[in-house]
Amino acid sequence: MSVLPNIKVVLVEPLYSGNVGSACRAMANMGLKNLTLVAPKIVDGWEEGERLACHAKNILEQRQTVQTLPEAVADCAAVVGTTARLGLYRQHVRMPREVAPELVRIAANGNVALVFGREDKGLSNEEVSFCTHLVRIPTADTYVSLNLAQAVMVCSYELFLACDHYEEPQEKSALAPAAHRIKLMEMWRLMLLKIGYMNDEKADHMMQGFQRIFTRGAVTEDDIHILMGVARQVGWAAGKQALPPRENPTLPGNP
Amino acid sequence: MSVLPNIKVVLVEPLYSGNVGSACRAMANMGLKNLTLVAPKIVDGWEEGERLACHAKNILEQRQTVQTLPEAVADCAAVVGTTARLGLYRQHVRMPREVAPELVRIAANGNVALVFGREDKGLSNEEVSFCTHLVRIPTADTYVSLNLAQAVMVCSYELFLACDHYEEPQEKSALAPAAHRIKLMEMWRLMLLKIGYMNDEKADHMMQGFQRIFTRGAVTEDDIHILMGVARQVGWAAGKQALPPRENPTLPGNP
Repeated sequence: MSVLPNIKVVLVEPLYSGNVGSACRAMANMGLKNLTLVAPKIVDGWEEGERLACHAKNILEQRQTVQTLPEAVADCAAVVGTTARLGLYRQHVRMPREVAPELVRIAANGNVALVFGREDKGLSNEEVSFCTHLVRIPTADTYVSLNLAQAVMVCSYELFLACDHYEEPQEKSALAPAAHRIKLMEMWRLMLLKIGYMNDEKADHMMQGFQRIFTRGAVTEDDIHILMGVARQVGWAAGKQALPPRENPTLPGNP
Repeated sequence: MSVLPNIKVVLVEPLYSGNVGSACRAMANMGLKNLTLVAPKIVDGWEEGERLACHAKNILEQRQTVQTLPEAVADCAAVVGTTARLGLYRQHVRMPREVAPELVRIAANGNVALVFGREDKGLSNEEVSFCTHLVRIPTADTYVSLNLAQAVMVCSYELFLACDHYEEPQEKSALAPAAHRIKLMEMWRLMLLKIGYMNDEKADHMMQGFQRIFTRGAVTEDDIHILMGVARQVGWAAGKQALPPRENPTLPGNP
Protein backbone atom coordinates (compact mmCIF):
# COMPACT_ATOMS: atom_id res chain seq x y z
CA MET A 1 0.00 0.00 0.00
CA SER A 2 1.42 3.33 -1.02
CA VAL A 3 1.35 6.18 1.47
CA LEU A 4 1.58 8.77 -1.31
CA PRO A 5 -2.22 9.39 -1.36
CA ASN A 6 -1.86 10.59 2.26
CA ILE A 7 0.52 13.37 1.25
CA LYS A 8 -0.78 16.71 0.02
CA VAL A 9 0.97 19.73 -1.43
CA VAL A 10 -0.19 23.08 -0.05
CA LEU A 11 0.71 26.29 -1.87
CA VAL A 12 0.16 29.46 0.16
CA GLU A 13 -0.97 32.49 -1.88
CA PRO A 14 0.72 31.52 -5.15
CA LEU A 15 1.02 34.39 -7.65
CA TYR A 16 1.74 32.73 -10.99
CA SER A 17 -0.43 30.02 -12.49
CA GLY A 18 2.59 28.68 -14.39
CA ASN A 19 4.20 27.73 -11.11
CA VAL A 20 1.03 26.03 -9.93
CA GLY A 21 0.79 24.10 -13.22
CA SER A 22 4.47 23.11 -13.12
CA ALA A 23 4.01 22.01 -9.52
CA CYS A 24 1.13 19.77 -10.66
CA ARG A 25 3.34 18.12 -13.26
CA ALA A 26 6.14 17.59 -10.71
CA MET A 27 3.61 16.06 -8.30
CA ALA A 28 2.32 13.70 -11.00
CA ASN A 29 5.89 12.68 -11.88
CA MET A 30 6.41 11.76 -8.24
CA GLY A 31 3.09 10.03 -7.64
CA LEU A 32 1.36 12.79 -5.64
CA LYS A 33 -2.20 13.89 -6.44
CA ASN A 34 -3.59 16.18 -3.76
CA LEU A 35 -3.13 19.90 -4.21
CA THR A 36 -4.53 22.59 -1.91
CA LEU A 37 -4.20 26.30 -2.58
CA VAL A 38 -4.45 28.78 0.29
CA ALA A 39 -5.97 32.11 -0.77
CA PRO A 40 -4.40 32.05 -4.27
CA LYS A 41 -3.49 35.47 -5.69
CA ILE A 42 -3.06 34.40 -9.30
CA VAL A 43 -2.22 37.50 -11.32
CA ASP A 44 -2.06 36.01 -14.80
CA GLY A 45 -5.14 33.83 -15.33
CA TRP A 46 -5.01 30.04 -15.51
CA GLU A 47 -3.98 29.52 -19.13
CA GLU A 48 -0.25 29.21 -18.46
CA GLY A 49 -0.94 26.93 -15.51
CA GLU A 50 -3.00 24.58 -17.63
CA ARG A 51 -0.32 24.53 -20.32
CA LEU A 52 2.51 23.73 -17.93
CA ALA A 53 0.51 21.13 -15.97
CA CYS A 54 0.71 19.17 -19.24
CA HIS A 55 -0.53 15.62 -18.52
CA ALA A 56 -1.24 16.55 -14.89
CA LYS A 57 -4.21 18.82 -15.62
CA ASN A 58 -6.41 16.57 -13.49
CA ILE A 59 -4.43 17.55 -10.40
CA LEU A 60 -4.91 21.22 -11.24
CA GLU A 61 -8.64 20.74 -11.86
CA GLN A 62 -9.19 18.74 -8.69
CA ARG A 63 -7.37 21.21 -6.43
CA GLN A 64 -8.89 22.31 -3.14
CA THR A 65 -8.97 26.00 -2.33
CA VAL A 66 -9.21 27.33 1.22
CA GLN A 67 -8.65 30.71 2.83
CA THR A 68 -6.16 29.92 5.60
CA LEU A 69 -3.26 27.56 6.24
CA PRO A 70 -4.85 26.08 9.40
CA GLU A 71 -7.85 25.06 7.24
CA ALA A 72 -5.55 23.51 4.65
CA VAL A 73 -3.69 21.38 7.16
CA ALA A 74 -6.48 20.71 9.66
CA ASP A 75 -6.47 16.97 8.88
CA CYS A 76 -2.67 16.57 8.82
CA ALA A 77 -0.55 14.83 11.42
CA ALA A 78 2.63 16.32 10.01
CA VAL A 79 2.83 19.80 8.52
CA VAL A 80 6.12 20.35 6.73
CA GLY A 81 7.03 23.95 6.06
CA THR A 82 9.65 24.85 3.48
CA THR A 83 11.94 27.80 3.97
CA ALA A 84 15.01 29.26 2.32
CA ARG A 85 15.43 31.87 5.05
CA LEU A 86 16.94 31.14 8.41
CA GLY A 87 16.14 32.87 11.67
CA LEU A 88 15.70 32.33 15.39
CA TYR A 89 12.69 30.05 14.98
CA ARG A 90 13.90 28.40 11.79
CA GLN A 91 17.18 27.04 13.15
CA HIS A 92 15.80 23.53 13.38
CA VAL A 93 15.39 23.18 9.60
CA ARG A 94 16.45 19.83 8.22
CA MET A 95 17.19 18.57 4.73
CA PRO A 96 14.27 17.03 2.81
CA ARG A 97 16.35 13.88 2.31
CA GLU A 98 16.89 13.53 6.02
CA VAL A 99 13.24 14.07 6.99
CA ALA A 100 11.63 12.06 4.18
CA PRO A 101 11.81 8.60 5.82
CA GLU A 102 10.14 9.98 8.96
CA LEU A 103 7.40 11.63 6.89
CA VAL A 104 6.75 8.38 5.04
CA ARG A 105 6.34 6.61 8.39
CA ILE A 106 3.91 9.30 9.57
CA ALA A 107 1.97 9.11 6.30
CA ALA A 108 1.26 5.45 7.03
CA ASN A 109 -0.92 6.58 9.94
CA GLY A 110 -2.04 10.07 9.05
CA ASN A 111 -1.96 12.83 6.50
CA VAL A 112 1.14 14.84 5.70
CA ALA A 113 1.15 18.35 4.21
CA LEU A 114 4.10 19.80 2.30
CA VAL A 115 3.65 23.56 2.62
CA PHE A 116 5.24 26.07 0.23
CA GLY A 117 5.10 29.85 0.65
CA ARG A 118 4.59 32.71 -1.76
CA GLU A 119 7.00 33.12 -4.70
CA ASP A 120 8.20 36.47 -3.39
CA LYS A 121 8.39 36.01 0.36
CA GLY A 122 7.83 32.43 1.39
CA LEU A 123 6.03 31.53 4.61
CA SER A 124 5.40 34.04 7.39
CA ASN A 125 6.58 33.33 10.92
CA GLU A 126 2.97 32.69 11.91
CA GLU A 127 2.61 30.14 9.13
CA VAL A 128 5.86 28.48 10.19
CA SER A 129 4.44 28.20 13.70
CA PHE A 130 1.70 25.92 12.35
CA CYS A 131 4.32 23.48 11.05
CA THR A 132 5.53 20.36 12.84
CA HIS A 133 8.59 20.06 10.60
CA LEU A 134 10.65 22.62 8.75
CA VAL A 135 12.80 21.78 5.74
CA ARG A 136 15.30 23.74 3.70
CA ILE A 137 16.46 22.50 0.34
CA PRO A 138 20.27 22.43 0.17
CA THR A 139 21.61 25.04 -2.25
CA ALA A 140 24.73 26.96 -3.11
CA ASP A 141 25.17 29.93 -0.76
CA THR A 142 25.03 32.30 -3.71
CA TYR A 143 21.42 31.58 -4.68
CA VAL A 144 19.30 29.94 -2.02
CA SER A 145 15.82 30.65 -3.35
CA LEU A 146 14.31 28.01 -5.63
CA ASN A 147 11.49 28.57 -8.04
CA LEU A 148 8.25 27.42 -6.37
CA ALA A 149 7.61 24.50 -8.73
CA GLN A 150 11.26 23.41 -8.48
CA ALA A 151 10.95 23.33 -4.70
CA VAL A 152 7.81 21.20 -5.04
CA MET A 153 9.76 18.87 -7.34
CA VAL A 154 12.70 18.38 -4.99
CA CYS A 155 10.51 17.72 -1.95
CA SER A 156 8.15 15.40 -3.85
CA TYR A 157 11.14 13.56 -5.36
CA GLU A 158 12.63 12.93 -1.94
CA LEU A 159 9.32 11.60 -0.61
CA PHE A 160 8.84 9.42 -3.67
CA LEU A 161 12.30 7.91 -3.29
CA ALA A 162 11.81 7.43 0.46
CA CYS A 163 8.69 5.39 -0.35
CA ASP A 164 10.91 2.97 -2.23
CA HIS A 165 8.35 2.43 -4.98
CA TYR A 166 10.76 2.90 -7.85
CA GLU A 167 12.18 -0.22 -9.39
CA GLU A 168 15.26 0.58 -11.35
CA PRO A 169 15.21 -0.90 -14.87
CA GLN A 170 17.18 -4.12 -15.05
CA GLU A 171 19.26 -5.18 -18.02
CA LYS A 172 17.67 -8.14 -19.75
CA SER A 173 21.02 -9.72 -20.46
CA ALA A 174 22.72 -11.16 -17.37
CA LEU A 175 26.27 -10.20 -16.46
CA ALA A 176 28.71 -12.60 -18.13
CA PRO A 177 30.35 -15.27 -15.96
CA ALA A 178 34.15 -15.53 -15.88
CA ALA A 179 34.16 -18.58 -18.18
CA HIS A 180 32.61 -16.52 -20.98
CA ARG A 181 34.93 -13.59 -20.46
CA ILE A 182 37.94 -15.94 -20.57
CA LYS A 183 36.64 -17.60 -23.74
CA LEU A 184 36.20 -14.15 -25.29
CA MET A 185 39.81 -13.22 -24.50
CA GLU A 186 41.02 -16.49 -26.08
CA MET A 187 39.09 -15.76 -29.27
CA TRP A 188 40.45 -12.23 -29.43
CA ARG A 189 43.98 -13.45 -28.78
CA LEU A 190 43.77 -15.84 -31.74
CA MET A 191 42.17 -13.19 -33.92
CA LEU A 192 44.79 -10.55 -33.06
CA LEU A 193 47.59 -13.02 -33.76
CA LYS A 194 46.00 -14.04 -37.05
CA ILE A 195 45.68 -10.47 -38.35
CA GLY A 196 49.23 -9.68 -37.29
CA TYR A 197 48.23 -7.07 -34.72
CA MET A 198 50.71 -8.67 -32.32
CA ASN A 199 53.14 -11.58 -32.29
CA ASP A 200 53.34 -14.53 -29.91
CA GLU A 201 56.10 -12.99 -27.88
CA LYS A 202 54.09 -9.86 -27.01
CA ALA A 203 50.70 -11.53 -26.84
CA ASP A 204 50.46 -12.05 -23.05
CA HIS A 205 51.40 -8.47 -22.42
CA MET A 206 49.09 -6.97 -25.05
CA MET A 207 46.12 -9.03 -24.01
CA GLN A 208 46.21 -7.38 -20.60
CA GLY A 209 45.24 -4.15 -22.35
CA PHE A 210 42.19 -5.78 -23.92
CA GLN A 211 41.34 -7.46 -20.65
CA ARG A 212 41.35 -4.01 -19.04
CA ILE A 213 39.23 -2.45 -21.79
CA PHE A 214 36.60 -5.17 -21.78
CA THR A 215 36.24 -5.65 -18.05
CA ARG A 216 36.40 -2.12 -16.73
CA GLY A 217 32.62 -1.73 -16.87
CA ALA A 218 29.94 -4.36 -16.50
CA VAL A 219 30.10 -6.98 -19.27
CA THR A 220 26.84 -8.71 -20.10
CA GLU A 221 26.25 -11.90 -22.05
CA ASP A 222 25.01 -9.74 -24.94
CA ASP A 223 28.29 -7.80 -24.88
CA ILE A 224 30.23 -11.09 -24.98
CA HIS A 225 28.24 -12.26 -28.01
CA ILE A 226 28.90 -9.02 -29.86
CA LEU A 227 32.64 -9.16 -29.20
CA MET A 228 32.94 -12.87 -29.99
CA GLY A 229 31.09 -12.20 -33.23
CA VAL A 230 33.72 -9.62 -34.17
CA ALA A 231 36.54 -12.08 -33.49
CA ARG A 232 34.85 -14.80 -35.57
CA GLN A 233 34.15 -12.49 -38.47
CA VAL A 234 37.65 -11.02 -38.48
CA GLY A 235 39.07 -14.54 -38.45
CA TRP A 236 36.94 -15.44 -41.42
CA ALA A 237 37.78 -12.26 -43.37
CA ALA A 238 41.48 -12.48 -42.58
CA GLY A 239 41.55 -16.10 -43.74
CA LYS A 240 40.83 -14.92 -47.26
CA GLN A 241 44.04 -12.98 -47.71
CA ALA A 242 47.61 -13.01 -46.48
CA LEU A 243 48.21 -10.13 -44.07
CA PRO A 244 51.57 -8.49 -43.44
CA PRO A 245 52.81 -8.69 -39.84
CA ARG A 246 51.96 -5.39 -38.15
CA GLU A 247 55.05 -3.42 -37.18
CA ASN A 248 55.59 -2.03 -33.67
CA PRO A 249 52.31 -3.14 -32.26
CA THR A 250 51.21 -0.84 -29.48
CA LEU A 251 48.22 -0.28 -27.28
CA PRO A 252 47.73 3.01 -25.55
CA GLY A 253 49.02 2.56 -22.04
CA ASN A 254 50.88 -0.61 -23.02
CA PRO A 255 53.80 0.82 -25.03
CA MET B 1 38.31 22.73 -4.18
CA SER B 2 34.90 22.34 -5.70
CA VAL B 3 34.51 20.17 -8.78
CA LEU B 4 31.29 21.96 -9.76
CA PRO B 5 33.07 24.29 -12.26
CA ASN B 6 34.04 21.11 -14.18
CA ILE B 7 30.42 20.16 -14.73
CA LYS B 8 28.43 21.60 -17.62
CA VAL B 9 24.78 21.35 -18.56
CA VAL B 10 24.09 20.66 -22.23
CA LEU B 11 20.60 21.20 -23.66
CA VAL B 12 20.04 19.66 -27.08
CA GLU B 13 17.72 21.64 -29.38
CA PRO B 14 15.60 23.24 -26.64
CA LEU B 15 12.31 24.71 -27.87
CA TYR B 16 11.15 27.02 -25.10
CA SER B 17 13.26 29.80 -23.66
CA GLY B 18 11.34 29.56 -20.40
CA ASN B 19 12.76 26.08 -19.86
CA VAL B 20 16.28 27.31 -20.62
CA GLY B 21 15.85 30.20 -18.17
CA SER B 22 14.40 27.93 -15.47
CA ALA B 23 17.28 25.53 -16.03
CA CYS B 24 19.72 28.43 -15.46
CA ARG B 25 18.06 29.23 -12.15
CA ALA B 26 18.17 25.57 -11.09
CA MET B 27 21.86 25.41 -12.03
CA ALA B 28 22.62 28.55 -10.00
CA ASN B 29 20.74 27.12 -7.01
CA MET B 30 22.96 24.05 -7.21
CA GLY B 31 26.26 25.81 -7.84
CA LEU B 32 26.61 25.07 -11.57
CA LYS B 33 27.53 27.78 -14.06
CA ASN B 34 28.34 26.34 -17.48
CA LEU B 35 25.52 26.03 -19.97
CA THR B 36 25.88 24.84 -23.56
CA LEU B 37 23.02 24.81 -26.06
CA VAL B 38 23.18 22.48 -29.07
CA ALA B 39 21.40 23.94 -32.12
CA PRO B 40 18.68 25.69 -30.07
CA LYS B 41 15.26 25.87 -31.77
CA ILE B 42 13.76 28.54 -29.53
CA VAL B 43 10.26 29.27 -30.82
CA ASP B 44 9.24 32.03 -28.42
CA GLY B 45 12.08 34.54 -28.21
CA TRP B 46 14.25 34.99 -25.13
CA GLU B 47 12.05 37.23 -23.00
CA GLU B 48 10.47 34.42 -20.98
CA GLY B 49 13.87 32.77 -20.54
CA GLU B 50 15.36 35.94 -19.10
CA ARG B 51 12.40 36.39 -16.77
CA LEU B 52 12.56 32.84 -15.42
CA ALA B 53 16.36 32.81 -15.10
CA CYS B 54 15.72 35.43 -12.41
CA HIS B 55 19.02 35.98 -10.54
CA ALA B 56 20.81 33.51 -12.83
CA LYS B 57 20.71 35.70 -15.96
CA ASN B 58 24.51 35.63 -16.08
CA ILE B 59 24.42 31.90 -16.81
CA LEU B 60 21.97 32.49 -19.64
CA GLU B 61 24.06 35.33 -21.06
CA GLN B 62 27.33 33.40 -20.86
CA ARG B 63 25.96 30.26 -22.52
CA GLN B 64 27.91 28.55 -25.29
CA THR B 65 26.09 27.61 -28.47
CA VAL B 66 27.30 24.85 -30.79
CA GLN B 67 25.74 22.94 -33.65
CA THR B 68 26.28 19.29 -32.63
CA LEU B 69 26.43 17.22 -29.46
CA PRO B 70 29.97 15.92 -30.20
CA GLU B 71 31.15 19.54 -30.29
CA ALA B 72 29.41 20.29 -27.01
CA VAL B 73 31.02 17.38 -25.17
CA ALA B 74 34.38 17.23 -26.97
CA ASP B 75 36.27 18.22 -23.80
CA CYS B 76 34.32 15.93 -21.44
CA ALA B 77 35.59 12.74 -19.80
CA ALA B 78 32.07 11.73 -18.79
CA VAL B 79 28.99 12.43 -20.89
CA VAL B 80 25.82 11.73 -18.96
CA GLY B 81 22.69 11.34 -21.06
CA THR B 82 19.25 11.63 -19.50
CA THR B 83 16.35 9.55 -20.74
CA ALA B 84 12.81 8.79 -19.69
CA ARG B 85 12.42 6.16 -22.39
CA LEU B 86 13.81 2.66 -22.13
CA GLY B 87 14.97 0.48 -25.01
CA LEU B 88 17.54 -2.09 -26.04
CA TYR B 89 20.44 0.32 -25.75
CA ARG B 90 19.05 2.20 -22.75
CA GLN B 91 18.78 -0.78 -20.40
CA HIS B 92 21.86 0.27 -18.48
CA VAL B 93 20.27 3.47 -17.17
CA ARG B 94 21.01 4.20 -13.56
CA MET B 95 19.51 6.58 -11.02
CA PRO B 96 21.09 10.04 -10.73
CA ARG B 97 21.60 9.45 -7.01
CA GLU B 98 23.50 6.24 -7.68
CA VAL B 99 25.77 7.72 -10.36
CA ALA B 100 26.43 11.09 -8.73
CA PRO B 101 29.37 10.04 -6.50
CA GLU B 102 31.15 8.51 -9.50
CA LEU B 103 30.57 11.67 -11.56
CA VAL B 104 31.98 13.82 -8.78
CA ARG B 105 35.12 11.65 -8.72
CA ILE B 106 35.46 11.97 -12.50
CA ALA B 107 34.93 15.74 -12.31
CA ALA B 108 38.00 15.97 -10.08
CA ASN B 109 40.11 14.93 -13.10
CA GLY B 110 38.11 16.00 -16.12
CA ASN B 111 34.98 17.66 -17.37
CA VAL B 112 31.53 16.17 -17.02
CA ALA B 113 28.54 16.98 -19.24
CA LEU B 114 24.94 16.49 -18.16
CA VAL B 115 23.02 16.15 -21.43
CA PHE B 116 19.28 16.78 -21.76
CA GLY B 117 17.23 16.18 -24.89
CA ARG B 118 14.44 18.09 -26.60
CA GLU B 119 11.25 18.84 -24.67
CA ASP B 120 9.17 16.74 -27.06
CA LYS B 121 11.36 13.74 -27.85
CA GLY B 122 14.45 13.65 -25.67
CA LEU B 123 17.76 12.36 -27.02
CA SER B 124 18.05 10.33 -30.22
CA ASN B 125 19.74 6.92 -30.21
CA GLU B 126 22.72 8.45 -31.96
CA GLU B 127 23.01 11.09 -29.25
CA VAL B 128 22.75 8.41 -26.57
CA SER B 129 25.63 6.58 -28.28
CA PHE B 130 27.89 9.57 -27.51
CA CYS B 131 27.21 9.18 -23.80
CA THR B 132 29.41 7.34 -21.31
CA HIS B 133 26.65 7.21 -18.70
CA LEU B 134 22.88 7.13 -18.97
CA VAL B 135 20.57 8.21 -16.18
CA ARG B 136 16.83 8.07 -15.69
CA ILE B 137 15.12 10.08 -12.99
CA PRO B 138 12.90 7.85 -10.85
CA THR B 139 9.21 8.64 -11.36
CA ALA B 140 5.78 7.19 -10.91
CA ASP B 141 4.93 4.81 -13.76
CA THR B 142 1.96 6.95 -14.70
CA TYR B 143 3.96 10.03 -15.75
CA VAL B 144 7.63 9.42 -16.49
CA SER B 145 8.47 12.54 -18.46
CA LEU B 146 9.74 15.51 -16.47
CA ASN B 147 9.72 19.09 -17.62
CA LEU B 148 13.19 19.91 -19.00
CA ALA B 149 14.10 22.43 -16.30
CA GLN B 150 12.80 20.08 -13.59
CA ALA B 151 15.07 17.33 -14.94
CA VAL B 152 18.01 19.76 -14.85
CA MET B 153 17.11 20.56 -11.24
CA VAL B 154 16.98 16.95 -10.06
CA CYS B 155 20.29 16.02 -11.71
CA SER B 156 22.05 19.19 -10.54
CA TYR B 157 20.66 18.69 -7.03
CA GLU B 158 22.05 15.16 -6.86
CA LEU B 159 25.48 16.31 -8.03
CA PHE B 160 25.47 19.22 -5.59
CA LEU B 161 24.62 16.91 -2.69
CA ALA B 162 27.21 14.34 -3.82
CA CYS B 163 29.84 17.11 -3.64
CA ASP B 164 29.06 17.43 0.05
CA HIS B 165 29.38 21.21 0.00
CA TYR B 166 26.20 21.92 1.85
CA GLU B 167 26.49 22.55 5.54
CA GLU B 168 23.18 22.08 7.21
CA PRO B 169 22.25 25.00 9.48
CA GLN B 170 23.06 24.21 13.09
CA GLU B 171 20.97 25.31 16.02
CA LYS B 172 22.81 27.91 18.02
CA SER B 173 21.57 26.46 21.28
CA ALA B 174 23.17 23.15 22.23
CA LEU B 175 21.05 20.12 23.04
CA ALA B 176 20.28 20.05 26.73
CA PRO B 177 22.18 17.53 28.88
CA ALA B 178 20.22 15.10 31.06
CA ALA B 179 20.91 17.10 34.23
CA HIS B 180 19.01 20.08 32.83
CA ARG B 181 16.13 17.97 31.58
CA ILE B 182 15.84 16.34 35.03
CA LYS B 183 15.94 19.74 36.73
CA LEU B 184 13.21 20.94 34.37
CA MET B 185 11.00 17.98 35.27
CA GLU B 186 11.51 18.69 38.99
CA MET B 187 10.46 22.31 38.52
CA TRP B 188 7.37 21.31 36.54
CA ARG B 189 6.46 18.69 39.14
CA LEU B 190 6.53 21.28 41.92
CA MET B 191 4.65 23.75 39.79
CA LEU B 192 1.94 21.25 38.80
CA LEU B 193 1.51 20.22 42.45
CA LYS B 194 1.32 23.84 43.52
CA ILE B 195 -1.41 24.78 41.06
CA GLY B 196 -3.36 21.66 41.92
CA TYR B 197 -3.06 20.11 38.48
CA MET B 198 -2.22 16.78 40.19
CA ASN B 199 -1.79 15.49 43.72
CA ASP B 200 1.20 13.75 45.28
CA GLU B 201 -0.29 10.34 44.81
CA LYS B 202 -0.63 10.67 41.04
CA ALA B 203 2.48 12.81 40.47
CA ASP B 204 4.91 10.04 39.44
CA HIS B 205 2.46 8.71 36.92
CA MET B 206 1.49 12.08 35.45
CA MET B 207 5.04 13.30 35.16
CA GLN B 208 5.73 10.47 32.73
CA GLY B 209 3.35 12.18 30.35
CA PHE B 210 5.27 15.45 30.55
CA GLN B 211 8.54 13.58 30.27
CA ARG B 212 7.23 12.09 27.04
CA ILE B 213 6.00 15.43 25.68
CA PHE B 214 9.21 17.28 26.42
CA THR B 215 11.69 14.66 25.30
CA ARG B 216 10.07 13.27 22.17
CA GLY B 217 11.92 15.74 19.94
CA ALA B 218 15.28 17.33 20.47
CA VAL B 219 15.36 19.59 23.54
CA THR B 220 17.84 22.43 23.46
CA GLU B 221 19.15 24.56 26.29
CA ASP B 222 16.95 27.38 24.98
CA ASP B 223 13.91 25.11 25.18
CA ILE B 224 14.82 24.24 28.78
CA HIS B 225 15.08 27.92 29.69
CA ILE B 226 11.68 28.66 28.17
CA LEU B 227 10.00 25.80 30.02
CA MET B 228 11.74 26.54 33.32
CA GLY B 229 10.64 30.14 32.94
CA VAL B 230 7.04 29.00 32.66
CA ALA B 231 7.36 26.90 35.82
CA ARG B 232 8.91 29.79 37.75
CA GLN B 233 6.31 32.28 36.61
CA VAL B 234 3.39 29.97 37.33
CA GLY B 235 4.84 29.30 40.76
CA TRP B 236 5.02 33.03 41.38
CA ALA B 237 1.55 33.76 40.04
CA ALA B 238 0.00 30.82 41.87
CA GLY B 239 1.61 31.97 45.11
CA LYS B 240 -0.57 35.08 45.06
CA GLN B 241 -3.89 33.30 45.38
CA ALA B 242 -5.28 30.11 46.78
CA LEU B 243 -6.15 27.65 44.02
CA PRO B 244 -8.77 24.94 44.26
CA PRO B 245 -7.41 21.42 43.77
CA ARG B 246 -8.10 20.40 40.16
CA GLU B 247 -10.62 17.59 39.85
CA ASN B 248 -9.93 14.42 37.86
CA PRO B 249 -6.56 15.45 36.55
CA THR B 250 -5.94 13.86 33.21
CA LEU B 251 -3.43 14.00 30.43
CA PRO B 252 -4.33 12.71 27.00
CA GLY B 253 -3.02 9.17 26.80
CA ASN B 254 -2.64 8.98 30.58
CA PRO B 255 -6.30 8.63 31.63
